[in-house]
Amino acid sequence: MIKVTIWNEFVHEKQEGPAGDRIRAIYPNGIHALLKEKLAADDLEIRIASLDEPEQGLPDSLLNDTDVLLWWGHCAHAKVENELVDRIQARVQAGMGLIVLHSGHFSKIFKRMMGTSCSLHWREVGEKERLWVVAPNHPIAQGVPETFTLPHSEMYGERFEIPDDGKIIFLSWFEGGNVFRSGVTFFRDNGKIFYFSPGHETYPIYHDENVLKVIGNAIRWAAPIQIIPPRKTHLPDADETVYSKDPNKDIDTSNLHK
Amino acid sequence: MIKVTIWNEFVHEKQEGPAGDRIRAIYPNGIHALLKEKLAADDLEIRIASLDEPEQGLPDSLLNDTDVLLWWGHCAHAKVENELVDRIQARVQAGMGLIVLHSGHFSKIFKRMMGTSCSLHWREVGEKERLWVVAPNHPIAQGVPETFTLPHSEMYGERFEIPDDGKIIFLSWFEGGNVFRSGVTFFRDNGKIFYFSPGHETYPIYHDENVLKVIGNAIRWAAPIQIIPPRKTHLPDADETVYSKDPNKDIDTSNLHK
Amino acid sequence: MIKVTIWNEFVHEKQEGPAGDRIRAIYPNGIHALLKEKLAADDLEIRIASLDEPEQGLPDSLLNDTDVLLWWGHCAHAKVENELVDRIQARVQAGMGLIVLHSGHFSKIFKRMMGTSCSLHWREVGEKERLWVVAPNHPIAQGVPETFTLPHSEMYGERFEIPDDGKIIFLSWFEGGNVFRSGVTFFRDNGKIFYFSPGHETYPIYHDENVLKVIGNAIRWAAPIQIIPPRKTHLPDADETVYSKDPNKDIDTSNLHK
Amino acid sequence: MIKVTIWNEFVHEKQEGPAGDRIRAIYPNGIHALLKEKLAADDLEIRIASLDEPEQGLPDSLLNDTDVLLWWGHCAHAKVENELVDRIQARVQAGMGLIVLHSGHFSKIFKRMMGTSCSLHWREVGEKERLWVVAPNHPIAQGVPETFTLPHSEMYGERFEIPDDGKIIFLSWFEGGNVFRSGVTFFRDNGKIFYFSPGHETYPIYHDENVLKVIGNAIRWAAPIQIIPPRKTHLPDADETVYSKDPNKDIDTSNLHK
Repeated sequence: MIKVTIWNEFVHEKQEGPAGDRIRAIYPNGIHALLKEKLAADDLEIRIASLDEPEQGLPDSLLNDTDVLLWWGHCAHAKVENELVDRIQARVQAGMGLIVLHSGHFSKIFKRMMGTSCSLHWREVGEKERLWVVAPNHPIAQGVPETFTLPHSEMYGERFEIPDDGKIIFLSWFEGGNVFRSGVTFFRDNGKIFYFSPGHETYPIYHDENVLKVIGNAIRWAAPIQIIPPRKTHLPDADETVYSKDPNKDIDTSNLHK
Repeated sequence: MIKVTIWNEFVHEKQEGPAGDRIRAIYPNGIHALLKEKLAADDLEIRIASLDEPEQGLPDSLLNDTDVLLWWGHCAHAKVENELVDRIQARVQAGMGLIVLHSGHFSKIFKRMMGTSCSLHWREVGEKERLWVVAPNHPIAQGVPETFTLPHSEMYGERFEIPDDGKIIFLSWFEGGNVFRSGVTFFRDNGKIFYFSPGHETYPIYHDENVLKVIGNAIRWAAPIQIIPPRKTHLPDADETVYSKDPNKDIDTSNLHK
Repeated sequence: MIKVTIWNEFVHEKQEGPAGDRIRAIYPNGIHALLKEKLAADDLEIRIASLDEPEQGLPDSLLNDTDVLLWWGHCAHAKVENELVDRIQARVQAGMGLIVLHSGHFSKIFKRMMGTSCSLHWREVGEKERLWVVAPNHPIAQGVPETFTLPHSEMYGERFEIPDDGKIIFLSWFEGGNVFRSGVTFFRDNGKIFYFSPGHETYPIYHDENVLKVIGNAIRWAAPIQIIPPRKTHLPDADETVYSKDPNKDIDTSNLHK
Repeated sequence: MIKVTIWNEFVHEKQEGPAGDRIRAIYPNGIHALLKEKLAADDLEIRIASLDEPEQGLPDSLLNDTDVLLWWGHCAHAKVENELVDRIQARVQAGMGLIVLHSGHFSKIFKRMMGTSCSLHWREVGEKERLWVVAPNHPIAQGVPETFTLPHSEMYGERFEIPDDGKIIFLSWFEGGNVFRSGVTFFRDNGKIFYFSPGHETYPIYHDENVLKVIGNAIRWAAPIQIIPPRKTHLPDADETVYSKDPNKDIDTSNLHK
């Protein structure tokens, strides 16, 4: 049983006015609630969390019981507390999988895990997006056709500022002339990360069967083999005999490490 | 002319007692001052900076005039302000080279650029370190023998928690049985990063000709081709005709991006 | 059930004289036979093959029924026919896992999959080898201690000429002062490759529990999700409308592709 | 002075009929001759070679005097002798740069250096290709606009079967809905490799200023720092004292290496 937590800032879905109405028509109870419903499976125990909850939805009791965390954020990135980002990062380093969706490319946690600016080009004119599978034998691509389209999507285009160890699972083509590394994996310490760009809130992208297939596969792929707590000591005795004589052994250098 | 700034926390060298005496015997004016002297060359304009100076030694006037920044820190990592780390990260992303030395593996700026914990094993018994060139045709390895030793060194050993895009230039062997990726390069946005592990303050490692050769090469390698400021807009018009009709064009979604 | 084929050139074990006697004392029926015995498990169907058999041990009927191929060769690399190397390469590209052991670093098939010279330093004086796990959460490292030793081993040392996409699972330390990327993974088309360096024929290395654990893990890791035959056509019609007018549409260019 | 050799199979340009006429109108003396003319610069000494010449255009006297080799081939890949491929591979491993153009993706030398099938999707309907710079601070991208188009191009599309260490410099968008890693770098032993896909013989692509800029930059990037001949011996004495006693020292194992 994989313990999955879907975190959503849950702001757009509560917004007033016609844009909010449009979004609510697609995601009545929020993106996280729809994903929970659509991803339901016997091997997954799915919980949802959002920014407006205590401890911004991720108290240690939940975070440290999570195998794979999904993250959707957009307009409220700045409101996520650095202390929470620290805790999520530590959990990923221990082995938790992290799946960052769409505008989460600019979330604090994704930028923290990458070290890069994570910037990109974007445009919102409802253009068509076509995805291509670049790694057909990767677990995340199983059951996904070689190419599929989203009739209306927000454009995310290169240059996407991510590190070179991003293994490309999907590349996207956009009607307006752009291309994008739309599905990319990373390893950080003991944790696996998958970034997947489709998912704009004003289009019904998380109703798409292929998109759901990808996210479901990614959850199973990102689930940890084991959670490895930070090593207690990093100061081991020598395993092999040291014959060299330490020129400093007559002085106490232990205070240098304080 | 490459503008180099050598930053040193400059704490150990001012410490009282026999450990401080030992360090001052090796680095009378600080590690940064010795490196400035030893690295002097016609194509380099070298400045030094330290934690105890105004703006922790790196006001924008200096940082934004720096092509390559060298970083040495150890016991004062926590004193470096997050705001400074933000500014350094932005400068690296724009193209500045960053050379992180020895215990700088645990500096805020290195952890920020990596996303990993950057943890490792360590031991300080004065054992011998032997380095091997793994990328003999890399600019950083030019003029460096295939293998060379440091008679006394602090051991840094695997597992070293860095991302997989670290290209290995040097691997180290330690008398006590450990191995380490001791020279590794990374790219982050437009900036180049080199981590080089030799350099403990109680051994005269920065007096070693091979170590100095490596650092000098790394400065030339990390110097930017160009500094690329953050792109003004990431919201370009479509270069190609979009034939799809936006289902949202009747509503105003611009407030979603606030 | 994973179908495993262990291929061994099976030459040293039949050699006359005291060196042959020594090897036979360790591997009475050949390295392949011992590995088959030691790796036996309910989820594995293991077959053995050797150079002296018809079609050099790997007729299509066996090769194309193999999920994971283990390869041990040393003095007879040149005797392996290029036509067989072509067939193995095609099978790996379709998805078969390939585990290359020890002196197989210089086999035709490994050099073919890498493109590099695969050269290294070596020395045979019975020195101690110490391995370190560099990727503790990788499937191949599960159940393997952080560090373990082989009391007598042939030294394989850097520079090891392999491509930069080799993900390091193990690094080795040698008593004589060398270091080595002793366990490395690669992906080629749809197939997974693991190179593991321990395994010299004159030392009982394949009797070591940790070494066997690694190889057993690697078999499960390298097993294909699916075998993907070469795509029938690479000449698809356009999925999107092409509005540009081909300046060559008045001439027949089809003969250019013959 | 960088010594450049442009190799072209030089078959299409001599073909009879209207397709040949079309090609000759664009490349009267062959693609190699036009590239030589267009790339001429004070720091380059450019020679041309073709398949119909003695030793298929690349005798050792020329190959071993070449710093950077450009390769254009298409319908005659199979005619290139394996012995020549061996010699080119050895020269790249020693440090020579290799720039593989367009349909050279299926050349023996590129497949040899990659280990993968190098297969892709293709289509020839004169559609528009748009390239994007993905690594703006890479030497190969200097002076190239962020995006530029080729009005008519042969489509090359993903999945492109190359290893994961291919650093992406350019990504291409095609009118018909495909995307492609159109400019990719690799390192193999001491040599640098750049694959660049634009360049179909029936369109005047090598007359395009941006394409020529890219190729010119790539030549300077791929030029070797030094040529490193194969190491004479890989059997060094131990640098450090070996205390272990070799259990085999009473027997002669030297014949195992024959």
